[in-house]
Amino acid sequence: MPGGDPTALYRAAQAGDRRALGRLLSLIEQGGREARVAGRLAFGSSAGVEMVVGVTGAPGSGKSTLTDGLIGEVRASARQVGVLAVDPSSPRSGGAILGDRVRMGRHASDSGVFIRSVASRGHLGGLALAVPEMVRALAAAHLDVVLVETVGVGQAEVEVAGAADTTVVVVNPGWGDDVQAAKAGLLEVADVFVVNKADLGGAESTRVDLEAMLDLGREAAGEDGAGGEPAAGDVPGRPSGRWRPPVLLTSASTGAGMERLWASVEAHHRYLVDSGRLTERRQAQVVAEMRRVLASRLERDVEALLGAPEGREAIAGLGDRTLDPYEAAERLLAGLRPLPDPADPG
Amino acid sequence: MPGGDPTALYRAAQAGDRRALGRLLSLIEQGGREARVAGRLAFGSSAGVEMVVGVTGAPGSGKSTLTDGLIGEVRASARQVGVLAVDPSSPRSGGAILGDRVRMGRHASDSGVFIRSVASRGHLGGLALAVPEMVRALAAAHLDVVLVETVGVGQAEVEVAGAADTTVVVVNPGWGDDVQAAKAGLLEVADVFVVNKADLGGAESTRVDLEAMLDLGREAAGEDGAGGEPAAGDVPGRPSGRWRPPVLLTSASTGAGMERLWASVEAHHRYLVDSGRLTERRQAQVVAEMRRVLASRLERDVEALLGAPEGREAIAGLGDRTLDPYEAAERLLAGLRPLPDPADPG
Repeated sequence: MPGGDPTALYRAAQAGDRRALGRLLSLIEQGGREARVAGRLAFGSSAGVEMVVGVTGAPGSGKSTLTDGLIGEVRASARQVGVLAVDPSSPRSGGAILGDRVRMGRHASDSGVFIRSVASRGHLGGLALAVPEMVRALAAAHLDVVLVETVGVGQAEVEVAGAADTTVVVVNPGWGDDVQAAKAGLLEVADVFVVNKADLGGAESTRVDLEAMLDLGREAAGEDGAGGEPAAGDVPGRPSGRWRPPVLLTSASTGAGMERLWASVEAHHRYLVDSGRLTERRQAQVVAEMRRVLASRLERDVEALLGAPEGREAIAGLGDRTLDPYEAAERLLAGLRPLPDPADPG
Repeated sequence: MPGGDPTALYRAAQAGDRRALGRLLSLIEQGGREARVAGRLAFGSSAGVEMVVGVTGAPGSGKSTLTDGLIGEVRASARQVGVLAVDPSSPRSGGAILGDRVRMGRHASDSGVFIRSVASRGHLGGLALAVPEMVRALAAAHLDVVLVETVGVGQAEVEVAGAADTTVVVVNPGWGDDVQAAKAGLLEVADVFVVNKADLGGAESTRVDLEAMLDLGREAAGEDGAGGEPAAGDVPGRPSGRWRPPVLLTSASTGAGMERLWASVEAHHRYLVDSGRLTERRQAQVVAEMRRVLASRLERDVEALLGAPEGREAIAGLGDRTLDPYEAAERLLAGLRPLPDPADPG
């Protein structure tokens, strides 16, 4: 096995060395110079990933069990699958968390499955920066399908989910009691809804509730509220059509509904390909990624400047009222770069 | 009445011309060069505002009625009061919304009250930038107490609430059913909790619920969970002590509990003054304001650059994979300023 050299690790991972792939992902997660070398190689690789599927839901929604079920479905089609299990709150020990080891164990004999927990804190700008690069590294290692499992739905989670082509949102029966705001956020990111733990009862009314919200969303967007999945006008191949997220019932612990879930994910993928939206979506993702890199760079530079003499001077000026916040900001901008037009007060 | 010249408007507002003050606030709300002149004058004014009190709560919580009650309490102490009613979703017409006019009517005969609705969309960087400047303009016009009323608790609302010295969070009986995340956000910003519409029943159990959450928060922070308001160790004048938000029951529509609420707001203010935290808090606010100005400037510059030839080139480079997101970001940074260290891939 090669050492810490990112190019050697990359070549080894490409050739099928899974321990090298693991170390490559660690490099990317940590960020810095070596991550950049590895990231550049993976970005330039001709082996693009076939499908990136996000699985997102609250803790306890059964999303890990559901992800395990999806692994089985992917493997049934003889494709290789990589999993990034993102949990920013997980404690790490030596690069893998407990749940990770349990799951690794279950799939240990299958070289077509690669599972990795991501609980990054160190990476500059956080997970939203690291995850797309990790997906590309998995693609370079010839994993055909990548599942990205994320907890909850906050701003950071939505950004991480943005790395997926298709996002599966997992809810449980009774979810209708949750707060409107959270629903709205989920409605926006979901390509497929799953009411998991459907055996608990109440699943059907949750499904009806979700369908009604989808109708409302479509009416608000000035579309026809009626229609199936994909609805009339949503036919793949007609770029003007829109995808209506299906709402499925599953019971991941027994496997009920998993085949149909995977069929829906594949239908969404075909829709993206046939409508030309996959290319659009991936280009938009990479532009969004560039913006995040830029924002993170600028933020770092501003932090550095605030701690430098210019920053302390600006803060002192605010304190004694010789500079107002706009003037102080202009002083700091001058430290970042020559002002394009100091006469324009913004 | 002076014309649109910001200096003339500022002087007139200082001299007590309330129509000039209204126009000054409109200038600030709109942003741009004239806003900067007005903002600079208000920032440099020696007449600092005595108290800035935020009132925040969900739509329908009765926070407007509560604010009206607080106006009465302030006026009872012979001080002048300004109100900024922030509602980003309100439609505007000619600088005032309907509710504004109703309330203006009620206080029309009292020259010691000035009420202004803020539903800004135009201001660069939004309300979080405009509100602190508007507060300073009110202070320059010799309003002793400024009430800032904000709707809901999202990221933007929390930032706007950050302009206040003391934040009153308004909830209703039964609020315990809301989602954990929203609670956590409220716990962080609240200096005083109000269970309004206490006559509806269930208020006492909501109060107990809130007190329990405050105990939990204190335990998590490694503090003594017991204690009153302020608790043992929270005595004003002891800088190491912490303020424990009191939880009060009110019925703003009948006026019940309003006197006690205002006494709690004043107690918090005294605590801030005696502990030296008022000065700290206001300096931190103005530094945060400078950061927002800076972030907003940089964001605008990045947007401009993305639409310029450099930006289109970088985006094309991402598309044909000749540039990865980091390389593309570096190209754009070079357009913003000379790179400090191109060798550092950071």
